[in-house]
Amino acid sequence: MATVNGAAHYVAVDWGTSSFRLWLIGRDGTVLAERRSGEGMTTAAKTGFEAVLKSHLDAISAPDDLPVIACGMAGARQGWVEAGYLDTPAALADIVHAAVPVPGIDRDVRILPGLAQRDTTAADVMRGEETQLLGAGEILSSGDHLVCMPGTHSKWVRVSQGVATGFSTFMTGELFDAISKHTILSHTVGDGGAFDGTHPAFVEAVAQIADNPALATNRLFSVRAGQLLHALPATDGKARLSGTLIGVEIAGALSTVSAGGGICLVASGSLGALYQAAFSAFNLDPILIDADDAVRHGLASAARTLWPL
Amino acid sequence: MATVNGAAHYVAVDWGTSSFRLWLIGRDGTVLAERRSGEGMTTAAKTGFEAVLKSHLDAISAPDDLPVIACGMAGARQGWVEAGYLDTPAALADIVHAAVPVPGIDRDVRILPGLAQRDTTAADVMRGEETQLLGAGEILSSGDHLVCMPGTHSKWVRVSQGVATGFSTFMTGELFDAISKHTILSHTVGDGGAFDGTHPAFVEAVAQIADNPALATNRLFSVRAGQLLHALPATDGKARLSGTLIGVEIAGALSTVSAGGGICLVASGSLGALYQAAFSAFNLDPILIDADDAVRHGLASAARTLWPL
Repeated sequence: MATVNGAAHYVAVDWGTSSFRLWLIGRDGTVLAERRSGEGMTTAAKTGFEAVLKSHLDAISAPDDLPVIACGMAGARQGWVEAGYLDTPAALADIVHAAVPVPGIDRDVRILPGLAQRDTTAADVMRGEETQLLGAGEILSSGDHLVCMPGTHSKWVRVSQGVATGFSTFMTGELFDAISKHTILSHTVGDGGAFDGTHPAFVEAVAQIADNPALATNRLFSVRAGQLLHALPATDGKARLSGTLIGVEIAGALSTVSAGGGICLVASGSLGALYQAAFSAFNLDPILIDADDAVRHGLASAARTLWPL
Repeated sequence: MATVNGAAHYVAVDWGTSSFRLWLIGRDGTVLAERRSGEGMTTAAKTGFEAVLKSHLDAISAPDDLPVIACGMAGARQGWVEAGYLDTPAALADIVHAAVPVPGIDRDVRILPGLAQRDTTAADVMRGEETQLLGAGEILSSGDHLVCMPGTHSKWVRVSQGVATGFSTFMTGELFDAISKHTILSHTVGDGGAFDGTHPAFVEAVAQIADNPALATNRLFSVRAGQLLHALPATDGKARLSGTLIGVEIAGALSTVSAGGGICLVASGSLGALYQAAFSAFNLDPILIDADDAVRHGLASAARTLWPL
């Protein structure tokens, strides 16, 4: 462990609302150690951000002078230290220069800011995803791109020549959760099992909503009616709910951009596969960038600027 | 009271998911007594439908031989006695002929059926609203109409020459509730006060979503971003959430019909006024029919057929 830590360069932390991920990164850029837990902002706001960070640093025997770069909700107003927002249009390379140091502690800890779009008719914010954009930098540094970052609050970002020019958030993941649990659909989808992007009910739901996105809140009810009239199985209902919400997200995001430029999908695992399937229904074939890699690369980019070797 | 009951013809009951309303109707068609309570299907399924009905009939000293006509969730599978569905296209005048008697009790109690649209790509059901349509019969018996019936699950019904040819349900009211309470918007709209259709945030939200209904799930998030970036007050946020959901409902419903025929709005009180304001943003001026009157008139129409004087 002494050898490992002697080779350490910095610690990177992706601190979300409900998740905490930490990497100990070596001077050669390799991952020397990794920690994952559920101590996101919601938990850490109660137990203390410094205590949560310290427990993980202790667990990997991180030297006291090792600096830490963090992104995500740790920088929110309800987080550890408010790290503010960079306003759009924002050059991705400028994000690191707005990093905010955590005051009153011995270690050098910096938190990256979010991005804000202050336009009153399309006000929007992100926190964490800007670091993924930074991590996808090579692809995004030239040309025009539309970047889809699915999740609880999916972000769609327009990036031109390495500058985030504007973005839109869609409440897809959170709506899926709230509708599944807290509406009449809970009776229909509650017992549903796992499904993937090849599930016919998912594919059909995406295609239907692509055809007429205005019917979103009607298509949701059809999940319930399908169960009552045609004994639609719970898993089919769940797939249909998901396809409707992802479909209206994609239709909405595409409606705001003119043609031209490629689409990047920044996602991991099964969610990435689900969105790829949904894109297929729109006859689109985005470039896939792994979201876990992207956030780590973004933190690495910031760390190398702040603490050059 | 003896005099009143001597003049009684029947009892009408509108038995919804969460509400119970009962009217004692005289032989001359006037309302002799009225009862309202929260003993809807959800409550009555636990305490017993017969017991709930009996307690209200006792409270107004209804004679034992007075018949009862009911509509709504009392006829659902989870209700008192399943009253099934009439399939579209359904002549409104046929609804009464599908009324189901409640077996095993001394009193003559009949429950009206719902309507079902079995088309697998647009499966839909209603229960209770068909009786409102029946009650608006004079207007709907000739010509083509698009009938909007707002609520927890708003119904939009196409009626041609007194026949319900098809309909679509939008989860507007239930989504407003679930999103207000169980998403990040709860922090934004939770403390919001009352607003009406003249509230600028409501009017603006309807106009914005009318312009591009595909952005529905993005416009919802903008309520949160508006609070973070521009200190949008909670009442404004609530009005914007409402305007977005009502707006996408109207846009979606209008997208499914070709031009021609008038629009009827079957609603009561503040909800009716809110929808009228939303319709104005679409440059539409529907005929307003009071929903409370409509359901009572629908039950009356059925009762007069079943128990002619």
